[in-house]
Amino acid sequence: MITISGTTVKTIIKESLLREQVDPTAAEHVAEGLVSTSLRGVNSHGIRLIHHYLAALKAGRINPKPRYKVERRLPTVAVLDADDTFGHAAGMEAARLAIEMAGEYGSGNVAVKNSTHYGAAAYFALEIAAHDMIGTSYTHADSLIIPTNSKRSFLGNNPVCFAAPVAGEGPFCLDMATSLITFNEVRRLREINGTTPEGVGADKDGKPTTNPHEITMLLPVGGHKGYGLSLMVEILCSTLTGMPFGPHISKMFVDLEKKRHLGHFVGAMSIDGFGDAGAFKLRLRQMLDELRAEPSLDPAKPVMVAGDPEKKAFAIRSQDGIPVTEQELAQFQALNTTYGIGAAL
Amino acid sequence: MITISGTTVKTIIKESLLREQVDPTAAEHVAEGLVSTSLRGVNSHGIRLIHHYLAALKAGRINPKPRYKVERRLPTVAVLDADDTFGHAAGMEAARLAIEMAGEYGSGNVAVKNSTHYGAAAYFALEIAAHDMIGTSYTHADSLIIPTNSKRSFLGNNPVCFAAPVAGEGPFCLDMATSLITFNEVRRLREINGTTPEGVGADKDGKPTTNPHEITMLLPVGGHKGYGLSLMVEILCSTLTGMPFGPHISKMFVDLEKKRHLGHFVGAMSIDGFGDAGAFKLRLRQMLDELRAEPSLDPAKPVMVAGDPEKKAFAIRSQDGIPVTEQELAQFQALNTTYGIGAAL
Repeated sequence: MITISGTTVKTIIKESLLREQVDPTAAEHVAEGLVSTSLRGVNSHGIRLIHHYLAALKAGRINPKPRYKVERRLPTVAVLDADDTFGHAAGMEAARLAIEMAGEYGSGNVAVKNSTHYGAAAYFALEIAAHDMIGTSYTHADSLIIPTNSKRSFLGNNPVCFAAPVAGEGPFCLDMATSLITFNEVRRLREINGTTPEGVGADKDGKPTTNPHEITMLLPVGGHKGYGLSLMVEILCSTLTGMPFGPHISKMFVDLEKKRHLGHFVGAMSIDGFGDAGAFKLRLRQMLDELRAEPSLDPAKPVMVAGDPEKKAFAIRSQDGIPVTEQELAQFQALNTTYGIGAAL
Repeated sequence: MITISGTTVKTIIKESLLREQVDPTAAEHVAEGLVSTSLRGVNSHGIRLIHHYLAALKAGRINPKPRYKVERRLPTVAVLDADDTFGHAAGMEAARLAIEMAGEYGSGNVAVKNSTHYGAAAYFALEIAAHDMIGTSYTHADSLIIPTNSKRSFLGNNPVCFAAPVAGEGPFCLDMATSLITFNEVRRLREINGTTPEGVGADKDGKPTTNPHEITMLLPVGGHKGYGLSLMVEILCSTLTGMPFGPHISKMFVDLEKKRHLGHFVGAMSIDGFGDAGAFKLRLRQMLDELRAEPSLDPAKPVMVAGDPEKKAFAIRSQDGIPVTEQELAQFQALNTTYGIGAAL
């Protein structure tokens, strides 16, 4: 297995962005967001995305030097105009503001408009949880999920993310898309000629199928419940901000010169505002440990809680590096050479 | 079909509570909460619960005359000690406070402790949405759902509820339990010797089964995703408040003299704080109407949005009354007689 160290790949990503005249704070957030996500084992939203971001930057979709505008009519709610910069940078600016609001007033809620792809929702919620706050993070995305009873996709695979700090370990973190499996997983099943579980995908006519080669759209997790959650996220990200919704959102991987006008939403709540944060973290640890000690149906599959697989991956990958394919390694070597970064790969 | 008018049954419920020396505001919230829920078609959380509540009141579980205590360390977060009163009354007191906070500061978040069953989560979120705010409402419940990979239940069927106002119609309202179907539905399938869908329930050993007679526990909707959402709700309702969690929560229908120590959580966000609420409501209406106009797989099943079935039920039941069984009618007649209420049944 080929691996690449988190430190090295972060240097390559950040320096590549700086060479393209990206604002240093934005470059740091993109690099840190992508690398921490890969270290947590979430390959789909990690370092592999940098090549797409660089292409979108060069094509003019992404603004390298944003001038944020904040409209804050009341102390704990605001709209951040991201000026078409990187979603990672915009989301982190929103998280920073939400944390500041929550520190002073108990809670903070920031809707982001005119943004681009922000990567993993967890990056922002985890930052908030690191401040002893409860963090939420949502983004909408282009159309992929079929509403219940419909024959075509409308909403995106909009994620719901919630994080809270725990005594003696990393935060609890639920970061879930509103489909049962991702489209990346469908692609992987195509490659191995596998089948998807029932109720996961549908063909071009909206008919459910387990053949990954026929799947062009995804079904919402839990039927109308996943559809409802996806709509909740859409309301927070586009109805609140005036951004386009569902089928009106431009596609991520086509027309790279086109602005995306994406919306996100992040929220922070001070735990100390409700009571002692230390006591909260101990109580949460106790509940999570009780859950982990529950008897499992299959001894090989212990009971876990949301975020446990990512914590395990983080422990391993921080030591051993991030697994990459030969092709992925070559792409990072190319950045290292092209920009004369000189990282030891 | 026997029906009972919403107005009549509300009178009977409220007057019964008043005769039992319940605080008038609390009695109003219990009556309004139960009747509006039945009018919205949610039979499981509607008027049928009054008989249980009256029994729990007489047994000493529920405090008829609460003295609420609010601890508010920061302007937009608070803990409301419900003094063991009716959950409907406590939840409405929390919603009132959250709305007041959100009006002044943009958002408000109230965790409730020492409460009892609060009925349908939507009652509180809809009240918030009626103030042109985005409302959220959560409660935990006693253990019923099996964590992924486990062989026994731990968390309750904790609901997630989100409501937002819409131009020209009632609010959008997602109110979803974190199982695919309710235990009431399992009971109904037992009566008709039906089978449940796959992935809904498990037997006493935690093994998944489609035989409703064998089902003693429910599986989370969407596997680990429903489990994660349920855990998120548990954190907001018990970790934040210090109330017991999951298996430590006393059962609803046994030991009626025992206090329940339940927690809830309600949140409000001012839409005007983000931009013009009127424009928001028009945008949301446009999106919902576009969804409703989507082509459906089966013409008999149009595409709907969360809350549409409840809106339909409300329109019908407000005219024709709430359907009840003969036995249910007799129970309300008994209250009418016992308490000398004199409602025309």
